[in-house]
Parts: sequence; structure tokens; C-alpha cells
Amino acid sequence: MKQKDLYLGIDTGGTGVKYVVTDGDGSVLSSGDVPTDPNSITHSMESLGAAVAAALGGQPDFPRLAGLGMACAGIVNPETGLLGRSPNLPGWQDQDLAGDIKTVFQGIDVALANDVNGALYGEFRQGAGRDCRNLVMIALGTGVGGGVIIDGKLVTGSHCGAGEIGHMVLDPAGPTCSCGGRGCLEAWSGSMGLLRMAREAAVKGAADQALAKLVTDRGEALNTRDLAQLADKGNAAAVEIFRQAGRRLGQAVGNIVNLLDPDRIIIGGGVAQAGNLILEPCRKIVPGLVLAAEAKNVPIVTAELGPLAAAVGAACLARELDRTG
Amino acid sequence: MKQKDLYLGIDTGGTGVKYVVTDGDGSVLSSGDVPTDPNSITHSMESLGAAVAAALGGQPDFPRLAGLGMACAGIVNPETGLLGRSPNLPGWQDQDLAGDIKTVFQGIDVALANDVNGALYGEFRQGAGRDCRNLVMIALGTGVGGGVIIDGKLVTGSHCGAGEIGHMVLDPAGPTCSCGGRGCLEAWSGSMGLLRMAREAAVKGAADQALAKLVTDRGEALNTRDLAQLADKGNAAAVEIFRQAGRRLGQAVGNIVNLLDPDRIIIGGGVAQAGNLILEPCRKIVPGLVLAAEAKNVPIVTAELGPLAAAVGAACLARELDRTG
Repeated sequence: MKQKDLYLGIDTGGTGVKYVVTDGDGSVLSSGDVPTDPNSITHSMESLGAAVAAALGGQPDFPRLAGLGMACAGIVNPETGLLGRSPNLPGWQDQDLAGDIKTVFQGIDVALANDVNGALYGEFRQGAGRDCRNLVMIALGTGVGGGVIIDGKLVTGSHCGAGEIGHMVLDPAGPTCSCGGRGCLEAWSGSMGLLRMAREAAVKGAADQALAKLVTDRGEALNTRDLAQLADKGNAAAVEIFRQAGRRLGQAVGNIVNLLDPDRIIIGGGVAQAGNLILEPCRKIVPGLVLAAEAKNVPIVTAELGPLAAAVGAACLARELDRTG
Repeated sequence: MKQKDLYLGIDTGGTGVKYVVTDGDGSVLSSGDVPTDPNSITHSMESLGAAVAAALGGQPDFPRLAGLGMACAGIVNPETGLLGRSPNLPGWQDQDLAGDIKTVFQGIDVALANDVNGALYGEFRQGAGRDCRNLVMIALGTGVGGGVIIDGKLVTGSHCGAGEIGHMVLDPAGPTCSCGGRGCLEAWSGSMGLLRMAREAAVKGAADQALAKLVTDRGEALNTRDLAQLADKGNAAAVEIFRQAGRRLGQAVGNIVNLLDPDRIIIGGGVAQAGNLILEPCRKIVPGLVLAAEAKNVPIVTAELGPLAAAVGAACLARELDRTG
């Protein structure tokens, strides 16, 4: 019998299933993706199984796999193995995710997490949070998600509802958020928030002409990369939009540090690619918001692992399960 | 040799050292207090030792004590045993708290926590959070403090700076806080915040006459109990002040639940004695602020243990140390 020394990490979203095969140190030996069948876990796992088997040399019984982890969009219960609401995976919703995975990957232990927690765990073990014990990640995308690690363990909460950092209310009179509320972090520092601010600034009385032209030219296709390019050219109106988003991000970070005093804060997601445009205004205000002197200078860093973070994290969770279970 | 079956829990503030002696189930067998010597840990412990010895039948070597826990005001490091900044205990600051306790209580293991964490742990083991795994407490006093338990363990943070819930910024344009910042929870829902709102309301153009009279009559002695009495009589202006404090408390609770999804939120401290005046407005808005459906109806309850909470919690921490160490 061959040695079981590999871990399979899977990251499932509405359109694609990404995977990585790692060794026991978490190094990625192989990676790839297959399309998701949003109506069937089993079909998706069969496609994935074939791809992984091919990557591992054609063996369909995965003799070297010591464990499997899946990070999945939606409300994931790591303890029961069930998937709750998952808007982008209608046929996966309310299913026995761990059980269905095992019908294809027979005899292999399965670790689960939601997608943001998967990415956080990847950064914790292999990326920007490697040497931390307490860690918080804020993922700035269209929406804003997040995750918390305390004492080396993911915090899922009592109803798998933890990590909804995007809906921290920073001013109840603030702009409307996708959740129906007002003044959430997401309404400023998610890409929708940034684009809203850009469109508002473009129709003001004394609007900056370059910003107004960008907003008009790009129309519905406007994205935060467009805005960052304009800001990088020194356009003050675009810089100001990132500054506002960064200051609100800083308010949220300050609140989190006062509550949890982590070793580090990781900022991920597409908007984080704007780098210092959003991070410097954030870093500037955090020390003034944090009460404990020793916690004021918490490092606020960008994620390192990129699009494979959640798959890598899932593989690390599988390894953790293998070692403790 | 007698059985070691008792735990000593101590709660040290700037003026007094409270203690409880509990059995292994956490039930209080005896309690009392001695004055604090704010300049000397050892002197304070000697006074305490004499009181405890008397309570236990005059034996100075405490043969039945299986462990000792101390909840102490200030920045407490439970791992190193050191006390950091502690404004009300100038001579205790930057001392080896655990070591100095052991010079009096020789041969007895010492568990440490800060005062709010002590109270939270007491509620967790013996009070309003008995059956919880994840728990958050907000203590509404002159200042506003707090504590977090995740998976049955106190969260102290990477620099013993966790739990500063009072300085969660709820609106950066809000009122000035004692910390020098603006719009912190404490600036609305701590007693200073409530009294500030009352004084502001009393000098408005169309000020409520009963409120204005109360503020004038009581002057510097005005406290939140006065305000609550007026509100309990149906005075709309006083009710409105508690409503505002309660809504800001609710905003903070919503933010915490979105981040951590605990089983329960405990509201303690003197202001919590206003009961539903402040809790109902809080409970009313929380479900609308929480994203995860299952987490929306998190119970928001008042603390049960009263002034002995932190001493009881310290005794429970000592018992925990005894059982795991």
C-alpha cells in the first residue's frame, strides 16, 4: 500500500470548482479547475474526481489522498457537514455536502469551510498570516466578507453566521447597503460602494472632468481597476474615493482590534489590489482608534495567496483534520 | 492531609478587594472584602489572607484551597502573570501579580483575568451564560467594557487588548468619548453618555420641564438611576434618552453578532439596571442588523451575578486551571 501523503483542497463557487493537491507541508503540487454543476454536488464531484485522477496519474481510487477539504460558497456547517443557503449553488443548498463528496471520494475524510474561511485558513497556514495565532481577514469584493481565527482555530459562530464583517454598521445614517441596511462597511469599501461614490462624484456641480469622463465612458462596465488607474495617475477625485473607502475600512479594523486584538489584519479580495490607495488611509487612522497601546500598531497587510487561497486553505484544513482526528 | 476542595476567587478594584470561597461546583460558601492598598500587592494580599483565614476557620496555610483566581482592574496577562497599566492601582502596575500573590498564598496555583473577563467568566459558568459556548458581555458603567468567550475560552487577544467594546466607533461624527475619540459606544450607552444626553436635552429650547428640573436639582450628583426613575414614571424625554442609548447598544450588538455569532449577549454594569428602558430598544433593532438568519434572534439578557460576578468568575478560572493544568 502506498503512503497517504497528499491532500486535496477544493474551492467551489457558482461557476467553477478549483482544486489543489498539496503535500504534507501545504505546498501545491498540482492545481486545476472544472466547471461547477450548480444543480448537483455528485456530478460536480465526478468531474472533479476525473480531473484529479488524471493529475495524480490516472488512479481513480486516490490511494495517496490522506484527506480532502472543501471551501464552499454559502452557509457551511463544518461540524454536521451540511450546506445551508448558497444562492449561487441552488442544487447544492440544504444538502449533505460532506456525504455527497464521500460518494465520489470514498473512504477519505472531508473537512469543510465556507469560501472566505477557506481563504483565511490558507493565508493563516501558507500566506500572509503564517506566524499568527489570532488573525482577521476582510475580503473586499463586490460584497465584503471576512473571517476570524482565534488561538489557531476558525471561528464559525454558534449558527455558522460569524465573519459577516461587511455588514458592520459604521454609521446608521450612511449609504444604503445590498443587505437592505444602511452604513455597512460594504456600502463604502466593497466595489459597489466605491463605484457608487465615483458615480455620485461624477454628477456633482464641480465634478472632476477626468472622473466624470471615465464614469460616462465606462458606463455599466466601470470597475474599481478603472478607478485605481485614474487615481494612480494622480487624479485627486479618484484618490479621494479610495481615501473614503480606506477610512471606513480603518473604522471597521479599529472596531475589530478593540474587540479581538489580533496579531494581524489581512485585506483580500479584488479591491485590495488597489493597494496603498485604500490601505494607507486605513493604516493612518487605526492607531488613533485602538485603545490598548500594544494593539495600536496591528499590521494591516494584503493577502498573499491570490485566487487559490481558499483551495489551499481547504487542503490545510484537511491536513489539520487528519492530524487531530 | 485534608482534601483540597475549595477555590478562592478575588476581585480587585481601586478601593476594595472582594473575595469568595467556592466549592468545586462554583457555589459560594463564604464572601467578604478588605480594603485595597493601591500601592502594594503584598499588603493587600496579607489583609485578604487574614480575612480568608478567619472565614475558613483560622488556618493561615489554607490547607483546603485547591486554587486561587484573581480578576484585577487593568491590563492583565493571564499567561505571564504580569499586570500592565492599571490606573487605579498605581503600586500594582507593571508588577508580577501572580508572583506577589503567591508570596502570601504559598503553594497555590493562581489564575488571572482582567475584571470584566472575570465577571464574564462568572456569568459563563454560574450565571446568565451557563449553557453557552460562545458568549459576549458588554458592561455598561461609567465606562463601557466587555469580554468575549469563544468555544468556552476567554479571548484575551495577542496583547491582552481584547474586549474594548466600549470604543467601537458607531459614527465617526458622534459625540466625544472619554478616550479622546468620537462616536464610541461608551459616548452614548455608558453612564457618562446618558448623563450628557440628559444635560443636553435639559437646555434645549423646548426642554421637558421635569427633565430640566431633575438635571438642575441633582447637578453634579445626577446619575442614571435618577434618569431611570423619571423614565419609569412615563417621562417621554427620559425614555427617549434611554432609547437612544439602547439603539446605539443595539448597533454595537449587531456588529458583534455579525462578526462572531455568539449564543448570547449579556449586558451588565450599573446602566443595565435600567432594564427594558435600554434593552428593549436594543433588542428591537438587532434582528434587522444581523445578516445570518439563524443568528438574528440572539438572546440579549442582563447579567445575573451582581457585584460578586468577577470574584465568582475568578474562582471558576482557578477551578479550570486546577482541572486542566
